[in-house]
Amino acid sequence: MSEVYATRRSRLRDHFTAAGTAAALVTRPANVRYLAAAAPRGCALLLGRREDLLVCACPPDDRVGDGRPDESLRLYVLPPNGARAGGDAAVGAAELAVGQDADSLAVEEHHLTVARHRAISSVAPALRLTDLGGAVEQLRVVKDEEEISCLRIGAEIADQALGELLESILVGRTERHLALELERRLVDHGADGPAFPTSVATGPHSGRRGHRPTDRRVEEGDFLTVCLGAAYRGYRCEIGRTFVIGTSPADWQVELYDLVFSAQRAGREALAPGAACSDVDRAARHVLDSAGYAEALSPLTGHGVGLEIDEDPQLAPSAMGKLDACVPVTVEPGVHLPGRGGVRIDDTLVVRPEADGGPELLTITTKELLAL
Amino acid sequence: MSEVYATRRSRLRDHFTAAGTAAALVTRPANVRYLAAAAPRGCALLLGRREDLLVCACPPDDRVGDGRPDESLRLYVLPPNGARAGGDAAVGAAELAVGQDADSLAVEEHHLTVARHRAISSVAPALRLTDLGGAVEQLRVVKDEEEISCLRIGAEIADQALGELLESILVGRTERHLALELERRLVDHGADGPAFPTSVATGPHSGRRGHRPTDRRVEEGDFLTVCLGAAYRGYRCEIGRTFVIGTSPADWQVELYDLVFSAQRAGREALAPGAACSDVDRAARHVLDSAGYAEALSPLTGHGVGLEIDEDPQLAPSAMGKLDACVPVTVEPGVHLPGRGGVRIDDTLVVRPEADGGPELLTITTKELLAL
Repeated sequence: MSEVYATRRSRLRDHFTAAGTAAALVTRPANVRYLAAAAPRGCALLLGRREDLLVCACPPDDRVGDGRPDESLRLYVLPPNGARAGGDAAVGAAELAVGQDADSLAVEEHHLTVARHRAISSVAPALRLTDLGGAVEQLRVVKDEEEISCLRIGAEIADQALGELLESILVGRTERHLALELERRLVDHGADGPAFPTSVATGPHSGRRGHRPTDRRVEEGDFLTVCLGAAYRGYRCEIGRTFVIGTSPADWQVELYDLVFSAQRAGREALAPGAACSDVDRAARHVLDSAGYAEALSPLTGHGVGLEIDEDPQLAPSAMGKLDACVPVTVEPGVHLPGRGGVRIDDTLVVRPEADGGPELLTITTKELLAL
Repeated sequence: MSEVYATRRSRLRDHFTAAGTAAALVTRPANVRYLAAAAPRGCALLLGRREDLLVCACPPDDRVGDGRPDESLRLYVLPPNGARAGGDAAVGAAELAVGQDADSLAVEEHHLTVARHRAISSVAPALRLTDLGGAVEQLRVVKDEEEISCLRIGAEIADQALGELLESILVGRTERHLALELERRLVDHGADGPAFPTSVATGPHSGRRGHRPTDRRVEEGDFLTVCLGAAYRGYRCEIGRTFVIGTSPADWQVELYDLVFSAQRAGREALAPGAACSDVDRAARHVLDSAGYAEALSPLTGHGVGLEIDEDPQLAPSAMGKLDACVPVTVEPGVHLPGRGGVRIDDTLVVRPEADGGPELLTITTKELLAL
């Protein structure tokens, strides 16, 4: 496994040395984890001129359960109250870069705070600071089969948790309790934890993206939208389904469901290596637009997943770029009608060439409209 | 209630206008919430020359359950793909500051990223950017009785959840399951959610600060350390207790428990308006140091709580400053012996003058060594 991380660091090194920078400082936790196998709290990763160091403010032994740092990487624990670094790993790492004779350091300006940037300039005034930009995020977009395997297991766990919930009695239970029950089941089935706060939305809340569970109880005739995901070895997937509570759905519910289902299918079918992200978005969005729901639509219809639940690429009207094979994304159009509720259907899929059978669906819970 | 928030903003305004800055931009979510009653995701608060605006990238209606913004504050939703702001609330707020004829803007350099700072300079090049520093954090240190009341209710909820757990069978259950069970009970009793990830540590893990629950099961003879807290109306408290599993504790367990108990009591008794934070730390630390556990000690023995679970002041050897009345803090010394486990005892208390009865203990679960 160690080679995987060394190879990733080497690709990043090629990137910043080509840009004329001697060393790089990675601080965004998901990026550190991608390059170092673990990201103990408050740590920073230095890709130095002579050696790579994972710099921590305190021994990472304190944070069990987060994986061990890659063994090909040297762990450097800052001395307590370390003279100038002030116990800050990023500042300490910059001092260590100078010790390795680096004259320039690329930092993640989209993550580093202004205060920390100033502190680095102050302890290492000779160091020219450049912007690493989203270089690590870009490396993370295309996944290897090991990463996809973690996502696949996470999706299986989420499917199991959701399947069990559907077998229980739902009427009368609150959104909060259903969400907690789902999270417990995720852990029961081997998840590290939920991939993001589980969303359970009933009645007028249904169909809302990112709805936070309230004390509203499930009632007969409600739409019920559930969105959850498992984190498994750090990788996060997502599934969303909408159900109807009671014996038979109302006509408007069936119509709205069929519409969102068609939109979601159109989005899934548009996934292919080389497809423009904006075209995938348009495929799903067009179905809802034509039915007059343009206003109800959220700014995106899907996004990449991996070490973070919301990463590149975005499936949105203004998105640039094309999809590659082995990029996992969600496809999650939805409609929410204020006061009435709505529908959201959300899958995690991996983009695959047609020769390999087309997009690989990771979240396999049925998308028929179930009446519970 | 609205006056509370207007008064807080007015105190902050006095601070930055005295420093010669025309307007301020608050981005750290807990700080926004303190001044605006709510902090919708991705929002920024502008204290402008003519009016205060809560600037959001999308309508905050999407984030139910997080409270409503203060009504004396104008809500400003950025237009979709807003011309230069690029949909970023902080950048949009800076443009609005210019529109109110501000020539200078104090920003939270310890929270704002370098990239966002650059984007602000780029859309508003005439704006002189200064550092607001920790001004809002400093205002937050001393709590009003309304805030303390939220902490008190949160502490009651945590006591209840812990009390119920102690009545159930523990042997054979995993750390993860006990942690999830506690979190479910917190919500049952009316918490918004856990104040921080619940820590359950058994056997060799016991006594570790911030231990993340694993699949280890509770065994006879174990120490069991539980640390949890409730978030109630945004306010976060903390309680930690250590128990022994089985009929009677071993001698070393009783000795270690008594020692940590004495240290924690010494810390609690040192809490008083005017006491130096470092003296409170020393009172607790000295007891453990004298018994030869200096190495085992974490860098702090307590910290402030409020809208965040870890805020000013810090009770640590190098801490500056003194305690005031109405400052809620934790007192949480612990000892962890590698391979054997340890003890941690953690309370949330409010500093009160002796005339008012001395420190007010919010977390009232017994600190006797219980054998479960």
